[in-house]
Amino acid sequence: MSDYSIGVDLGGTNLRIAAVDVDGKLLEKLTLGAEVSRGRDFVITEMVKAIETLRSKYHDAGQLEGIGIGVPGFIDMAAGMVMESPNLPDWKSFPVRDEIEKRLGTCVILENDANSAAMGEKWLGAAREYEHMAMYTLGTGVGGGLVFNGRLWHGMTGMAGELGHFTVYADGHPCGCGSRGCLEQYASATAVVRMAREAVARDESTELERLSHDPAQFTSRSIYNLAVQGEAASKKVFEKVGRALGIGVGGMVNALNLPMYVIGGGVSSAWDAFAPAMFEEMKFRSSIYALTSPDRIGHDKGTIITRALLGSDAGLYGAARLPMLEHFSQTEKVRN
Amino acid sequence: MSDYSIGVDLGGTNLRIAAVDVDGKLLEKLTLGAEVSRGRDFVITEMVKAIETLRSKYHDAGQLEGIGIGVPGFIDMAAGMVMESPNLPDWKSFPVRDEIEKRLGTCVILENDANSAAMGEKWLGAAREYEHMAMYTLGTGVGGGLVFNGRLWHGMTGMAGELGHFTVYADGHPCGCGSRGCLEQYASATAVVRMAREAVARDESTELERLSHDPAQFTSRSIYNLAVQGEAASKKVFEKVGRALGIGVGGMVNALNLPMYVIGGGVSSAWDAFAPAMFEEMKFRSSIYALTSPDRIGHDKGTIITRALLGSDAGLYGAARLPMLEHFSQTEKVRN
Repeated sequence: MSDYSIGVDLGGTNLRIAAVDVDGKLLEKLTLGAEVSRGRDFVITEMVKAIETLRSKYHDAGQLEGIGIGVPGFIDMAAGMVMESPNLPDWKSFPVRDEIEKRLGTCVILENDANSAAMGEKWLGAAREYEHMAMYTLGTGVGGGLVFNGRLWHGMTGMAGELGHFTVYADGHPCGCGSRGCLEQYASATAVVRMAREAVARDESTELERLSHDPAQFTSRSIYNLAVQGEAASKKVFEKVGRALGIGVGGMVNALNLPMYVIGGGVSSAWDAFAPAMFEEMKFRSSIYALTSPDRIGHDKGTIITRALLGSDAGLYGAARLPMLEHFSQTEKVRN
Repeated sequence: MSDYSIGVDLGGTNLRIAAVDVDGKLLEKLTLGAEVSRGRDFVITEMVKAIETLRSKYHDAGQLEGIGIGVPGFIDMAAGMVMESPNLPDWKSFPVRDEIEKRLGTCVILENDANSAAMGEKWLGAAREYEHMAMYTLGTGVGGGLVFNGRLWHGMTGMAGELGHFTVYADGHPCGCGSRGCLEQYASATAVVRMAREAVARDESTELERLSHDPAQFTSRSIYNLAVQGEAASKKVFEKVGRALGIGVGGMVNALNLPMYVIGGGVSSAWDAFAPAMFEEMKFRSSIYALTSPDRIGHDKGTIITRALLGSDAGLYGAARLPMLEHFSQTEKVRN
């Protein structure tokens, strides 16, 4: 019998809710369709119902420490509100945290989804033995999260960790954020598909051209499958992913000299296809990485860049972890 | 009568040594020619002599808390050694800290010069009311330092804060670090002169062309003077400085969401000439900056990018500050 908390991961297609005990053991996971299109109140009601189901089921298992909710977008930690989120337009400037706290009568922490994923990998994943780490989530977009001294680094207004909007090519592809050449435009699943489409437009690949006829098939995964089979243009797409990551992660190594950088999200399954170019570029871009790479000074002392271990559950576990840390956290400091 | 410590700033042309009390009051400052070319042992002997002069003079003023020494290059904090320094080739892999500690019989802290400058501005300068800040020193090169929770952030191997080697133009000018397009290649005094020379080569300015005949006159300061007088090509050079800073600082705002970024070093006196382009670029590159700029949410809550206040003394004051913090510092943790 251990105390536990409940983590929520609100993605574009799924709403996932898990009860996790303080030792990181998964008690139960529920997956609902997110149906974000039915509006904020519908999603919140579904979420609260599922949380109550888990809470009554594990009532005798231990004390519920609280609820952590990972959502895409900028979070105002002090207010417990979503400030900006392209995926959740009607959540903006609504007191989500307070509303859910009121309905459930327990501590609720609202957090950015990539920050939650960082906390998940720090707690139970690739970075579990590290107190300092950076996380990159390569999904539809590219998110990021920073953990210093075992705690999420939120920055002044809770917006820190936007590692996907690092400029890698100053005059590069326009980004939804308003800038150009952001890492997200070269290392997200969306970017992989766009770069493959550009290769088709340049007549570089009959295989990619064939694949592109069926939009449902023209995904970063199928492009990766072509790359693995040795198809030149697809390999080049993932080399570009690696170069861009090398510039972005290299900049962070130069700035922060952390011991551990974790690459997660769907595109990270294409690790074999992008990692060689990424490591090469890192050594070029960052003297610190060149001086501290594991092949130079050993894996135990070196700067480690590695794949995430928890897959799509990182954010869920991380969200569940948040209430367990609450009384020490920067969140708390910001809120009080 | 207050306790005091002694700060040392070992630059390319000067060796400066100051006794500063715990309230930040300067007791005395000595400036010696660095004569780095006469070798490590000569410089160390001169330094130790000067420190002893100050120590015997202020013997009755209070307790000497220790010595802080800022030097250019990568520092191995654990070993108290210079790992890499283009300016101090014969200092590499020599136990500087232990040697000086032995000669003086007091606590010595070796620190990177830009980190020292960051600590100086945090203690007594532009960031004195902030617990978290980033410092850029625009000098012959571009250095950087990070302060989190009032302490220097050293990273895993003491190399953190290399903000000058952030890639701003991926295919840009080759850098001494081995990469291309580093911020240093666009925002240092050296870069200002190179960009002005490039403008001359493109026949863009008779004024710059005339100035370039006398290498002693062809400095970032004289190019700035032309810019202030409205000379178009010189103005464009400083606009490039501003754009590059906007990309670099914008990336740091996206990553860390700190409340305060301080721009110091010689080139920062050209603030009027580069700041407008820098602020414009920051808003373009960083949604976080656009959302939190002082003109949007007020100076007291906004993200502040500002000039350093201590000029060339920042590193000296910061070095003196280090022994005062020693018992809490990351340095200590790394060393024990």
